[in-house]
Formats: sequence, structure tokens, C-alpha cells
Amino acid sequence: MVGSTTAASVPGRTPPTADDVSDPGIDDLLSAIRGADGDAAGAARDRFAALATPPGALGGLEDLGVRLAAATGTSPPPRLSRATLILAAADHGVHAQQVSPWPQEVTALMVRTATQQRSTADAFAATVGAEVALLDVGVATPLDDHPRLTSSSVRPGTEDLSRGPAMTATECEAAVRAGARLATDRIDAGTQVLLTGEMGIANTTAAAALLALTTGADAAEVTGRGTGIDDPTLARKTAAVAAAVDRHRDDEPFAQLAGAGGLEHAALVGVLLAGAARQVPVVLDGVSTVAAACVTAALCPAVTDHLVAGHRSPEPGAGRGLDHLGLRPVLDLDLRLGEGTGALLALPTLRAAVAAQHDVATLAEVLG
Amino acid sequence: MVGSTTAASVPGRTPPTADDVSDPGIDDLLSAIRGADGDAAGAARDRFAALATPPGALGGLEDLGVRLAAATGTSPPPRLSRATLILAAADHGVHAQQVSPWPQEVTALMVRTATQQRSTADAFAATVGAEVALLDVGVATPLDDHPRLTSSSVRPGTEDLSRGPAMTATECEAAVRAGARLATDRIDAGTQVLLTGEMGIANTTAAAALLALTTGADAAEVTGRGTGIDDPTLARKTAAVAAAVDRHRDDEPFAQLAGAGGLEHAALVGVLLAGAARQVPVVLDGVSTVAAACVTAALCPAVTDHLVAGHRSPEPGAGRGLDHLGLRPVLDLDLRLGEGTGALLALPTLRAAVAAQHDVATLAEVLG
Repeated sequence: MVGSTTAASVPGRTPPTADDVSDPGIDDLLSAIRGADGDAAGAARDRFAALATPPGALGGLEDLGVRLAAATGTSPPPRLSRATLILAAADHGVHAQQVSPWPQEVTALMVRTATQQRSTADAFAATVGAEVALLDVGVATPLDDHPRLTSSSVRPGTEDLSRGPAMTATECEAAVRAGARLATDRIDAGTQVLLTGEMGIANTTAAAALLALTTGADAAEVTGRGTGIDDPTLARKTAAVAAAVDRHRDDEPFAQLAGAGGLEHAALVGVLLAGAARQVPVVLDGVSTVAAACVTAALCPAVTDHLVAGHRSPEPGAGRGLDHLGLRPVLDLDLRLGEGTGALLALPTLRAAVAAQHDVATLAEVLG
Repeated sequence: MVGSTTAASVPGRTPPTADDVSDPGIDDLLSAIRGADGDAAGAARDRFAALATPPGALGGLEDLGVRLAAATGTSPPPRLSRATLILAAADHGVHAQQVSPWPQEVTALMVRTATQQRSTADAFAATVGAEVALLDVGVATPLDDHPRLTSSSVRPGTEDLSRGPAMTATECEAAVRAGARLATDRIDAGTQVLLTGEMGIANTTAAAALLALTTGADAAEVTGRGTGIDDPTLARKTAAVAAAVDRHRDDEPFAQLAGAGGLEHAALVGVLLAGAARQVPVVLDGVSTVAAACVTAALCPAVTDHLVAGHRSPEPGAGRGLDHLGLRPVLDLDLRLGEGTGALLALPTLRAAVAAQHDVATLAEVLG
């Protein structure tokens, strides 16, 4: 990933302006990404077949274990003891369209609650043994500095995606790189698995637009009630999504992200690219993380091999996006909070899928 | 639970012959069991409603958290840090009907592997932070003493349930009490949640018989392929189940357990009774634990309020039994191993449902 490319290999994006090892450019990341490691996957299948368990008895857990071997290129895969949830936060100009019952200031309140380790994500992270890294890529309300918060604000919230592009290409790339930089830093510090989450009032509107654009679904198919909206609000939300989709339908993926996405979605694209480039598995959470995954897969299909779906959000766009990516979620608990909660709850199952490959006796050992 | 009752309050069962605090009799357990604690459940609902999260955003996790408050009679419930998987092992006379591709001796091999902490259950227990307690209630092959193994063998496997009663009432009661005793010992030692699992070649045959008897399903509806059997084996298995069901259809639940169950199913009934009596939640696993739960609920419907379904086994009888009990499983991973694996993987989600009630900020705190 060292070195700079000056050509814009992703159509619709301006070339990177600076690159170094700790701040990988998008092209560097893209050129480093390989798909599933077939040798590691084969070795993992062989290992499961050799265990002193009936063939197939571990069901979806075996599939998950093989996927983790293929994603990490290692059999057995690392134990995923060190896990980091990256919580990307930003605000949304489309909030002005009354697509959410919550004031925009709630985003900043959520981030502050997380700096105090009192968010739901913090409670779950402590339960499962994961670290939480907060990333401000564009919260509209000014936030105090805090050791738990990485400040990479690109702008104080996006423009209104229903009326014009949410971001410029330069802003979008800055947000992608902020996510990639934080993820890379955490990988350098020893993180073995990245979990994704977000905070951003109105961000399910942007997520729906990205999902419609990347999956080909109609706006109405992928626009849901988020954390609870009434019918008139849903109608406004769907109209906002449809406007963005109409405007960006024929754009390249990066331009779709800039035009219809959120800064936190862009940052999550960077997290996914950085994880895939380093063969560190990335766990998806709710609809916003799935939207980021669909954009990332459109940029670079091989990224999908490095992803695990943690949870099936009840948001209609999330299910559509997971189907598009071919991912089967570990959990289905009707969580609609985001914040990485579904990714965190899936983490112990990932670790178990790895532990089976390290710790369980083989039939030969049992009979021997 | 102190004190003895001499009347056989459960029809079809002989009266208990001895009782003390550490060896509760079945009547003592039954008389100690209360259903859900409505006050604790109400307080838990109020707590979730007060959190700085959108109403209903925690979905099934809130239901689980309320259930744990109701089961423990405490709001917020204890953190479930101390968890014990009780793995009950036994053999089955119906194995002679060629209902399984595995030799009966595999049961003992599985137990030995677990004493060496090399079973899948051990790998998962280490991952999620649970202890494992092995209980021999009737393994046919002699087992060496081991500190990790509680030897309470009632007899070296059951009689063939397709030809006559699997156990006498006295044997069945001894197995129930062995399970209750071990569970009570672990609760006395500080366990806050009990997980259930089993090892026993051919025990899905007995489980199917118990599920047919307790849910009213036909033998063919609840008899599945276990860890993988061919069509002729499935036909023999279904015929064996049907024979036991025909013989015990009109019996009381305890007599059905003795007539068609396994010693490990009886022990698990004891575990469930002991957990419910002490308001310690019990997590179900695969089809054999669900069968034990259906029998226990038939003996004492209030027990169900203390149960959590960890995993939806693909065995048809498991789904039928969970529906009968009205339980929604936490996970659905196509595990068909038993050994408590599904219960273990659900444990972190239970702990998260509790942690949300202890650790997440309320809206008043966030705005305060």
C-alpha cells in the first residue's frame, strides 16, 4: 500500500492529493485488495471435516469459519481477540426534509454519550470484549475534543441529497480516507477484526438512496421506518430518496456515494477498503453499514469476501443489500439502533467459528 | 425447598424417598417454582423505555432483557457473569433399532473428549466465558473418574423405548434428581445462568418421542435426521418413535418421560426444575433440551417463564417444541451438534440484554 498513484482509477473521483503509509489513498487500498484466499478456505474445510463432529453438524458456523479463513488468508484464522468497533458519526442536510422525528442535535448527544462510555454500543462492547473508536467525519454540532473521539470532520453535515449532491468528490474522498486511516491505525495497533457502526440522525435516508443506486431497487423498496416514523414522514423520506436516485442513477459508484450518501457512509467505505486491503475481516451491522458495503463492492467486488454480516436489520434496504452481497447474517434480533450493536453481538460467534478450528479434537485424536 | 413431601403430587411418579437441602426432591422443586415476576418485568420495561434509545430500537433484545428480569425476579437482572453448561450424557437401548449411524461407544468417546476440554462445547465455552459441568447419568461404556465429570449413573443406558418402557419410574426420578442436584450445587457455588446440553448417541430418537407426546405431533412430524441419517434409517427411527408414542400417549408427563425418554433427558428436566425453583434462567440448546423443556412444562407450566431458547435446531421436533413453548430462539445457525453449542453462542446476547439495563444512559441523563 506504500506509494502514490496519480491516475484516478475510480471513475467519478478526483485523484488523491497525498499518500503515505499511515494515510492510504483509495487507489493504494484498491490495488492491495485480493478476494478470498482459496488455499486457506480449503485448509479450513479440511480442518472442519477432520474434527470429531458429524459432517456438517456445525452448519452455518462452519461456513463462517471457512469464510474467516478465506478473508484472513490463514488457516486456522487468528482468534479475533482484539476487536475494534469503528463508530462513524455525521449529520445530514436531508434532515431539513423532515425525514426523521429526531432533532439533528441528537447526533452530537449520541457521540457525547459514547465518549462517556454510556451508549448501547459501549455496553455491548464491554460484554463481548471489543474496543470502541469514535470517528467524527461531519457532525453538525461542535464537539469537544475527547481522547475516545477521532476528529476528522470534513464539513458540518452534508448538503440536502434530495436537492443536489450531498458532498463534493473531494469531500467524499476525505471522508473515505478518514475511515481508512482510523481503520489502518487500529490494525497497526493489533486489531484482528473490525466492526462497523454509525451515528447520524437521518442517515437511513442516505443509506436507502445508496442501496437503491447499488442494488437497482426502487426507492420505495428500500426506504424504511428507521427508528420509527409515521406515514407522512415515510412518504417524505421516500420522495427524498427517489430524487437522489433519479439524479445519480447513471453515475459511477464513487459519484453515487458523494451525491447521495453521508459522510459516515463514506468513512465506512474507507473502513471496509482498509480492512480488505489488510485481510482483516469487517463485520457489518445495520442498514447504513450494508449501504456502505454495497458501494464498496461496486468499487471493488473482491471486498465482499472480507465481510461478515452481523445482523439482519428489519430495515427493508438492509435485507435487500445483504441479498445483493450474498451475505447471510449471524443474528436476526430486530435491532434497529445501528451503533454497531448487531455487529458486536455477532462477534462471539465469529470467535467460536475460529476457536473450533484451533481447539476441537480431530477424530484421529479422539480415536488415537 | 427444605422439607419433604410424602405425597406423590405428580401422577405417575412414585413418592420421593429422601430429601435434603442439597438434594431437592421433585415435589420440593415443583412447590418452589413461581412463574414470571410481573413487578420485575414491569420495572425492566420501564427501564428500557427510559433509555436514550428510540422506542423499540432494541427489538428482540429488549424482550430478552425483560424476560431475564421476570425470570430472575430482579430488575435489572444479575449480569450472568457466572454461567455453567450442564452436559448430561447417557446411552439408549433404542440404539439396537439401528436409528443412528454411530456406534454406541461414541457417547463415551465424546464424554472423554470433554473431560480433556477438547469438545466443541469446551471451545465455545472458553470463547464466551462459561464453565462446563459433565454429568454421567447412564453412559453404557464405563468411564474413568475425572474431576470434571460428576458420576451419577442410574443404569448403563435405557431399555429400548420401541419395545417397552425406557426406564422405571424410580430410575427416571433418580436421573431427574441427579440433574437437579448438580444444578443446585452450581447455583450454590454462584452460577447465575444455567445452559443445557447433552451427549448420547441415538438420543434424538427419544427426544422425538417426548416431543410427539408433549406437543401432540405425529411421530413423522418430529422425527428428523439428527446428525445425518439415510432414508431407511429415518424410517426405522420414525417407527421406533411411533411405537413409544402409541404406548405412552395417554400417560401423565412423568410416565411419558420414563417410558419414552432418555436418562439425560430426565437429568435435564431436573436441571430445568432446579433453575426455575431458584429463579436462575436456563438456556435451551438443541432438540433434546427442547424435549426436556416440553416435559418439564407439562409437569409445571410456570417453568417456561424461566427458559430462554438459545438456538433453533434444524431438527423438525425442535421447532415444533419451541413453538409449543412459545419461545423465540436467539440464534438460527443450523447447528445440529447438541452439546450445548447453541446455548453457549446465545450467552453473550443474554448478557448484552442485561448490560443494557445496567449500563446504558437514560434519556434524562443524556439531556440532564
